[in-house]
Amino acid sequence: MSTRLSQLFVRTLREDPSDAEVTSHRLLVRAGYIRRQAPGVFAWLPLGLRVKARIEAVIRDEMQAAGAQEVHFPALLPREPYEATGRWTEYGDGMFRLKDRKDADYLLAPTHEEAFTLLVKDLYSSYKDLPLTLFQIQDKYRDEARPRAGLLRGREFTMKDAYSFDASDAGLDESYQKQRDAYERIFTRLGLEYVIVKADAGAMGGSRSEEFLHPTVIGEDTFVRSAGGYTANVEAFTTIVPDTVPLEGLAPARRLAPADTPTIDSLVAQLNEDEARDSGPWTAADTLKNVVVALSHLDGTRELVVVGLPGDREVDMKRLEVAFAPAEVEAAGDADFVKNPVLVRGYLGPQVLGGESDSGIRYFVDPRVVEGSAWVTGANEKGVHVADLVMGRDFTADGTIEAAQVREGDPAPDGSGPIETARGMEIGHVFQLGRKYAEALGLKVLDENGKQVTVTMGSYGIGVTRILAVIAEANNDAKGLIWPANVAPFDVHVVATGKDPVVYEVAEKLTADLEAHRLDVLYDDRPKVSPGVKFGDAELLGVPQIVVVGRSAGEGVVELWDRRTGERTPVPVAEAVASLTAPRAS
Amino acid sequence: MSTRLSQLFVRTLREDPSDAEVTSHRLLVRAGYIRRQAPGVFAWLPLGLRVKARIEAVIRDEMQAAGAQEVHFPALLPREPYEATGRWTEYGDGMFRLKDRKDADYLLAPTHEEAFTLLVKDLYSSYKDLPLTLFQIQDKYRDEARPRAGLLRGREFTMKDAYSFDASDAGLDESYQKQRDAYERIFTRLGLEYVIVKADAGAMGGSRSEEFLHPTVIGEDTFVRSAGGYTANVEAFTTIVPDTVPLEGLAPARRLAPADTPTIDSLVAQLNEDEARDSGPWTAADTLKNVVVALSHLDGTRELVVVGLPGDREVDMKRLEVAFAPAEVEAAGDADFVKNPVLVRGYLGPQVLGGESDSGIRYFVDPRVVEGSAWVTGANEKGVHVADLVMGRDFTADGTIEAAQVREGDPAPDGSGPIETARGMEIGHVFQLGRKYAEALGLKVLDENGKQVTVTMGSYGIGVTRILAVIAEANNDAKGLIWPANVAPFDVHVVATGKDPVVYEVAEKLTADLEAHRLDVLYDDRPKVSPGVKFGDAELLGVPQIVVVGRSAGEGVVELWDRRTGERTPVPVAEAVASLTAPRAS
Repeated sequence: MSTRLSQLFVRTLREDPSDAEVTSHRLLVRAGYIRRQAPGVFAWLPLGLRVKARIEAVIRDEMQAAGAQEVHFPALLPREPYEATGRWTEYGDGMFRLKDRKDADYLLAPTHEEAFTLLVKDLYSSYKDLPLTLFQIQDKYRDEARPRAGLLRGREFTMKDAYSFDASDAGLDESYQKQRDAYERIFTRLGLEYVIVKADAGAMGGSRSEEFLHPTVIGEDTFVRSAGGYTANVEAFTTIVPDTVPLEGLAPARRLAPADTPTIDSLVAQLNEDEARDSGPWTAADTLKNVVVALSHLDGTRELVVVGLPGDREVDMKRLEVAFAPAEVEAAGDADFVKNPVLVRGYLGPQVLGGESDSGIRYFVDPRVVEGSAWVTGANEKGVHVADLVMGRDFTADGTIEAAQVREGDPAPDGSGPIETARGMEIGHVFQLGRKYAEALGLKVLDENGKQVTVTMGSYGIGVTRILAVIAEANNDAKGLIWPANVAPFDVHVVATGKDPVVYEVAEKLTADLEAHRLDVLYDDRPKVSPGVKFGDAELLGVPQIVVVGRSAGEGVVELWDRRTGERTPVPVAEAVASLTAPRAS
Repeated sequence: MSTRLSQLFVRTLREDPSDAEVTSHRLLVRAGYIRRQAPGVFAWLPLGLRVKARIEAVIRDEMQAAGAQEVHFPALLPREPYEATGRWTEYGDGMFRLKDRKDADYLLAPTHEEAFTLLVKDLYSSYKDLPLTLFQIQDKYRDEARPRAGLLRGREFTMKDAYSFDASDAGLDESYQKQRDAYERIFTRLGLEYVIVKADAGAMGGSRSEEFLHPTVIGEDTFVRSAGGYTANVEAFTTIVPDTVPLEGLAPARRLAPADTPTIDSLVAQLNEDEARDSGPWTAADTLKNVVVALSHLDGTRELVVVGLPGDREVDMKRLEVAFAPAEVEAAGDADFVKNPVLVRGYLGPQVLGGESDSGIRYFVDPRVVEGSAWVTGANEKGVHVADLVMGRDFTADGTIEAAQVREGDPAPDGSGPIETARGMEIGHVFQLGRKYAEALGLKVLDENGKQVTVTMGSYGIGVTRILAVIAEANNDAKGLIWPANVAPFDVHVVATGKDPVVYEVAEKLTADLEAHRLDVLYDDRPKVSPGVKFGDAELLGVPQIVVVGRSAGEGVVELWDRRTGERTPVPVAEAVASLTAPRAS
C-alpha cells in the first residue's frame, strides 16, 4: 500500500498547540495524528488511526494467543447492573450518566465488569465451560476532573479490557498468569519499557493486583523498587511494623512545660533545649503528629477522623485516599476546628480521640505506632505537649493506616533492602477481582459434585490510546516523532525533492517496488514544496525509514535516512529496496 | 486459523427469544451472535463480531478504493457545533444528551456532519486541498422512540459515514458519483440485492439524495418503481401536475341543496342522486377533501393548517411529515375544532382559509389542485356543500404539498409508466448536503482567484450493523442462518461425529490442512455431543461449507455439505480439501 502525501489528509503545524502539556500531545497534534474535540476527547486523523490500528493488532494477536476470545459490548449500558455492584454510586462524578427519552438511567461505561459477568451468567452454567477469558477493544468513558496531557488522561479513550472466569482460586491464578505473560509479550513487541509493581486494589476491590508501569518523569504514579527486586506502586507499599514493646516498666506520661510550639520543628527545638537526653538529640521521629481530615462517605455523610503518624513523615494524600476509599478525603477546615473545640490545633493528642472516646472521633495510626511505643505529642491544651505517651497504655487507635509518605531509603517490606522511588505511567493492570462481581450479580456454575459455586474473576486492562501516547513520549527528539517499526504508520517515507522529472520517476518506481514487497509507503510527491519543508515534515511525522530521492536520482542513487540515528547513506536504488525489504527483528 | 467449538464462547438456544420480531433477530440471538443489553443495545459475541469485521473490511476496502480516507471521531461531542447548525434542537428526543461534571452540554452523536466540517475547516484552506472524502466506521447513537427488530433499528449501532468536500457543484457531483459507485460495489460484494431510489432530503436539508433499499417485506420504507425504470422513496415521489385551466367561461360556484353528507362517500352518493351528469357518475376524485392538522414548530408554537386534496386520496402521514419537517405533525383534535368554529367538521371548504384570510389558517393543496380546477367541497356550513368551486377564482392556497397517498398505477413523474409500490429496508444513503453545514460552521476555502468560497459537501452512510441483519434476513431457512461466503464467520465448519478416535484424528488433520490453506475453520470437536445436536448447531450457525467426518472416516471418506442447497456429497478427504480450497468467485 502506498499513500501520496499530496493526497493525505494531514496538515503539519509549526506551532505547538497552546493546551499541550506533554511532548506526546504536542507532537501528535503538530504532526497531524490527532485533533482535540473537547477536553479529553480527540478525533483520530488518518496517520493516528493507522498507528492505533497497529497497536490494536499486536494486542489482539497476543490476546488470542493467550486463549482470550474477542467480544464487543456497547458503551451505553443500563444502570441496574452497576446499581447491583454498587458502582453506580461508588464511581461518583467520574462516570458519565444520562437518561433516555423514557427517563431510564444509563451510563457510558468506564469499565465493563458487570456486563461481562452478566453475559457469562446468561450463557454458561457448568464448571466444564470454564476457564474462559473474554476481551474487547472498545471506547470507554470517564468524566475526569482534570483531563490532561492529551491522550494520557482522556475522557473518551480506547481500552483493551479482558475478564477471566474460573471455578476455583487455582484456576484464577492460572488465568491471571496467562494474561500477565501476554502483557509482557505485548509491551515487549511494542518496544515499551515496563516495570511490574504490586498495586493496591483501591476502589476496585479484590485481591492480587499488579500494575505495568512505564518509567517516565511525566508519570502520574510513583512506584518504589529495591535493589533486591521488590516493586510496588507507592499506594501499595507497606511499612515494616516494628516489634511491640512490653508496657511494663515504661516511663509514665508527663506534661511538658508550656511553650509556644505549634509546629513539629518548634517542638523539636524546644525539646532539645529543655529535655536534652543521652541517646542523642530529639528528632521529629520522636513526635506523634495528628492530622485531622474529613471523609465524605458514599451515603453523603461527612466524618472527621484523625490520622496519627511519626512527626518526621508527611501524610501522602494519594495513599490516604486509597486507604479510605471509596470515601473521599479532604483536609479539615477552620470551620471543623471551630465546631470541634476538643481538637486543639497544634497541640492535638490522641488521649481525647477514638470511636469509643467522648469525642467519638475515630483515630487511625501509622503502622509504626505499635503497642508500647512512646511519643511526644499534644496535651490537647494550647501550648502544652506530653512526653512518654504510650500506645496501648495512654491511648488506643481504631485501626492502622498506610498514609505516611514513602521515602527513598525506607526498607522494602520483603527485606530486599532500601527502596528508591521513581515516576511511572500506568500502561496495564492485571487484577484478581475474586468473587465480588460474581456474587453481586449471581454468577454461579455447577461444580464436579453438582454443587453451585460462585465464579471467581480476573480483570485485565490496557489503555490503547494511552500507550500510543506513551510510545510517542518514549520515541521522539527535538525534530519530531520516531516510531518503532512495529507501530509506525508507514514502513518507509519516500521523499522526492527538487523539480527534475527524473526524481519523480525514480521515486514513483521505488514506491511501487517497495509496495510490491508488501511495505506500506508514504510518498512525498508534493511538486511545489521545498526540500527543507519536506525533510522537516518527514522528521516530524516520524516514519522510521526515510529515502530521499534527489539530485543523484539520475545516476540511480538515493539516500537512506535512519530517522532514529540520523544516519544518512547514499546507495543505489536497487540496494535501497533490498535493504528496506530485508527481514528485520521485530 | 481454526477454532474448536468446545472452546468457542457460544451457546445455541432452542427457543426463540421472546422479544424477537424478525427472523434476523431471532436467528442471531439463537445462534449466539449477539445478546441484548438494553432496548436497541446489543453485545457482540465472537461469532457476531467476526461477521461484523468482515462486512467492515469490505466497506473499508471499497471506501479506500474510492479515494476516501479513514478517520475516527468520538461519539461524545460538545453541544456548540450542533447548536450552530440547529441540529441540537431539530433532533428532538432522538438525540442522547448529557452533561459533564462541569455542567457542560454534550451529546452522543447520531451523525457527524458538524465534526467533519469543523475538522476540515481546521486543517484546510485552499481549493487545492480539495476534493476530499473522509470516512469512519464508528458507533452511533439515536434514542429511537421504538427500538425494534433487533439490529435493524437499534439505539447504539455501527455506521460507516463518509463526507465529501468540494469547492464547486461539479466537484460535488463527481464525489457523489464515486461514493454511489462504491456503494454499488459494496452491496454487490456483500451479495445484497438493492434498489437505488430518489429520496427526500427530509430533515437533513440539501439537494440530490438517493437511498439504497434492500427489497424485503419487513422493510420500513415504501418505494415505488415503474417498468420504465423510475424509482423513488414514497416520500420523494412527485405527482404529475395537470395543466391549468383558463378561468374564463367556467361555470360559477353554486350551493348544493342541504343534506346530511358529512363523508366523501355520502356526498358522492348524494351528488349522483341529485346532480346526475352526462360525463359519467360523480366520484370521490371530483371532491376536494380538507384535512385539518396541527404542526408543532421547533420554537414550541402549535399551528393548525389545512391540507386540501382530491377526495379519493388519503393523506399519507409519512409524506405529510416529510413535507412539514422539521415541524412535527398530528391530526387536529376535538379541542381544535371547538376553539376554531370557522372549521365546520365535514363541511369545511377553502373559501375561509389561507394565511391572508380572516381565519389566518394556512391552506396547502395537493399538486392536482391547479388553477382553474373545479371542485365539490364544503360550504363551511353544516349540511351544505358547493360545486364548481374553482381554484384561483373562488379560493387560493398558501402552497402545494406532496402529502396524498401514492397508489399502484399512479403515473411515474418522468413519464416512464405506471408505478408499483414495494417495501424496502434502507441499507445506504448518498446525499448532497450542499453548503448547509459549511455555511453554518464557516467552512470556506480560497478559490483559483483568491476569493473565499463556501465548500459544498456530500454525506454518505451505510448502517454496518443494520446490513449485517439484512444479510441474515435474506440468507436463512427454517434450520438457521446461511452466510454468503464473503461475510461468513468461518469458511468451513468441520463436524466430527461419534466416538471412534479415528474420526477425531481425521477431523484434526483435515482442520489443520484447511488451516494451512489459509481458511478459517470452525471445528466441532465436542466429544460427548450427539451427531444430531452437532448437525443442528451447524445448520443454525450457518457456515456455508460443512464437512462431516463420521463413520467412513476410517476409509478416508468424509461428507461435504453445502449449507445453502443442502446437497451432501461423500468424497475422499484429499478431494474435500481440494474442493474447499479451490478458488471461487467472490
